[in-house]
Amino acid sequence: MTETQIKGVFCAATTPVNADGAVQHGLFTDHCRALLDEGCHGIAMLGTTGEANNFSIAERQSLLDAALGAGIRGDQLLPGTSSCNIPETIALTKHAVDKGVRACVMLPPFYYKGVSDEGLFRFYASVIEGVADDRLRIILYHIPPVSQIPLSHDLIERLIAAFPDIVVGIKDSFGDLEHMSELVRRFPGFSVLAGADPLMLPLLQAGGAGCITATSNLRADALRVVFDNWKDDTQADLVKAAQDRIVAWRELSNSFVQLPTIKSMVARVRGDDSWMSIRPPLVPVSDAQRETIWAEMARLGQ
Amino acid sequence: MTETQIKGVFCAATTPVNADGAVQHGLFTDHCRALLDEGCHGIAMLGTTGEANNFSIAERQSLLDAALGAGIRGDQLLPGTSSCNIPETIALTKHAVDKGVRACVMLPPFYYKGVSDEGLFRFYASVIEGVADDRLRIILYHIPPVSQIPLSHDLIERLIAAFPDIVVGIKDSFGDLEHMSELVRRFPGFSVLAGADPLMLPLLQAGGAGCITATSNLRADALRVVFDNWKDDTQADLVKAAQDRIVAWRELSNSFVQLPTIKSMVARVRGDDSWMSIRPPLVPVSDAQRETIWAEMARLGQ
Repeated sequence: MTETQIKGVFCAATTPVNADGAVQHGLFTDHCRALLDEGCHGIAMLGTTGEANNFSIAERQSLLDAALGAGIRGDQLLPGTSSCNIPETIALTKHAVDKGVRACVMLPPFYYKGVSDEGLFRFYASVIEGVADDRLRIILYHIPPVSQIPLSHDLIERLIAAFPDIVVGIKDSFGDLEHMSELVRRFPGFSVLAGADPLMLPLLQAGGAGCITATSNLRADALRVVFDNWKDDTQADLVKAAQDRIVAWRELSNSFVQLPTIKSMVARVRGDDSWMSIRPPLVPVSDAQRETIWAEMARLGQ
Repeated sequence: MTETQIKGVFCAATTPVNADGAVQHGLFTDHCRALLDEGCHGIAMLGTTGEANNFSIAERQSLLDAALGAGIRGDQLLPGTSSCNIPETIALTKHAVDKGVRACVMLPPFYYKGVSDEGLFRFYASVIEGVADDRLRIILYHIPPVSQIPLSHDLIERLIAAFPDIVVGIKDSFGDLEHMSELVRRFPGFSVLAGADPLMLPLLQAGGAGCITATSNLRADALRVVFDNWKDDTQADLVKAAQDRIVAWRELSNSFVQLPTIKSMVARVRGDDSWMSIRPPLVPVSDAQRETIWAEMARLGQ
């Protein structure tokens, strides 16, 4: 499993839509290219921050095609390919694997609550068997505050044992360092990626593989400084300054509802107010909130 | 709004799949016809009990077509047509309206948690404007234990005010009679339908419109007796016996995980063990559980 280990700073890229909700492909691919220039190793498109579940299957496939068409390489992409049901998860995943993506990030099915590990195992196994492609790599996605479906350590162990070359990592957005460290200890060679930017550094120190995060839409540069230098004692000051910057930007992104707040921040960084738009059930930040956010960004030196 | 009021006993019909997970159209339409014979006014197909979110958009459209093809009338059908995203909810709803269904049962989008009433209003408004068909009737679906997205009274009021001929009712599966009664008091002419079988009787007494329930897969006869006779004091014993039967069967259906338990009960009633199958993340009841359930069914006189 080690040779396929996925390491680095991956951005949970946000997805631009226009005021009518239509996906803005050009704005998205420009953003992805900028993120790679700013230091991201790759783009985890169409995750929670990317509003995947606000888009249809066809829209999601089309956005992946647009990224590839704009010159982003498949090995730079970790798209979210899950839906609540098996056939659509297979369709999204097959499409992504056929396009040569590095790995697919996969939520558990999230409508029914309190489902068993056996049921979740069968879901993932059905998807893997339905995709039936040796190139498939899956990053499990543990985000109980949103999905309400935790992935237990026992389930993860069973999936790795059954599909060791396919189930290669996890995005852990539970927000608890000890939970991630336990994954590192229990599953050597498995890529544990932090879902919260400030936790990437302590996770790397505990043997983790990097991050898939929202603040990297804004501070990929600082995350990359931490990722590249955390082992080097002579760079301790540089790492500390970058980590402080990550923490401050992450805090700012949580000032109001996170996704529209991030979009308002990207709007300012990219100089395009159409980034403010978002699909229901999410709503943009208010004008007053945007002014507060932008003033704080200026204070933080952007 | 009163003239379009939807009243009656509607079955949240369960959906048969084979051991490979493929939808069994013939078994489903036979079940629907039997439910209508047993007393249901209509079939609320593809709801929570019907595993809607375990099926693709294409599978859901195809199952509705199968029901109509088998002679179930559109005005007897209340399909669930929601998904987490607007374009697919529009596609499912347009298809159902074009086929002449009585109404569409619609969950709120259920991935993002803690969303605002404003965001939920925009979601439903976008769907209604996207479908753009005067024939559309919507039954809102309030099931916070599963969706984790409650529909507030203020949101419902705003939707009724904006779309009085379209937003005509609610399936309330919160399980609290007072919550349903408050809906009846606050929104005259709005169809409040109980999501739990034992609550249909007290809801009718409070001015409610009937039910959309799971136990009607098994005891439509008793629900219909209550619905037809609850106002008639001379039939008090008959109504009480039927209500007791509803309560007992409902309790039995909750012995283990509800959906597979109901499927095991339908398997026995319809004499076809293939009804036991269910799609992941749900799993069938064990053989031992099935024996327990079937023994209790025999004791209850089935």
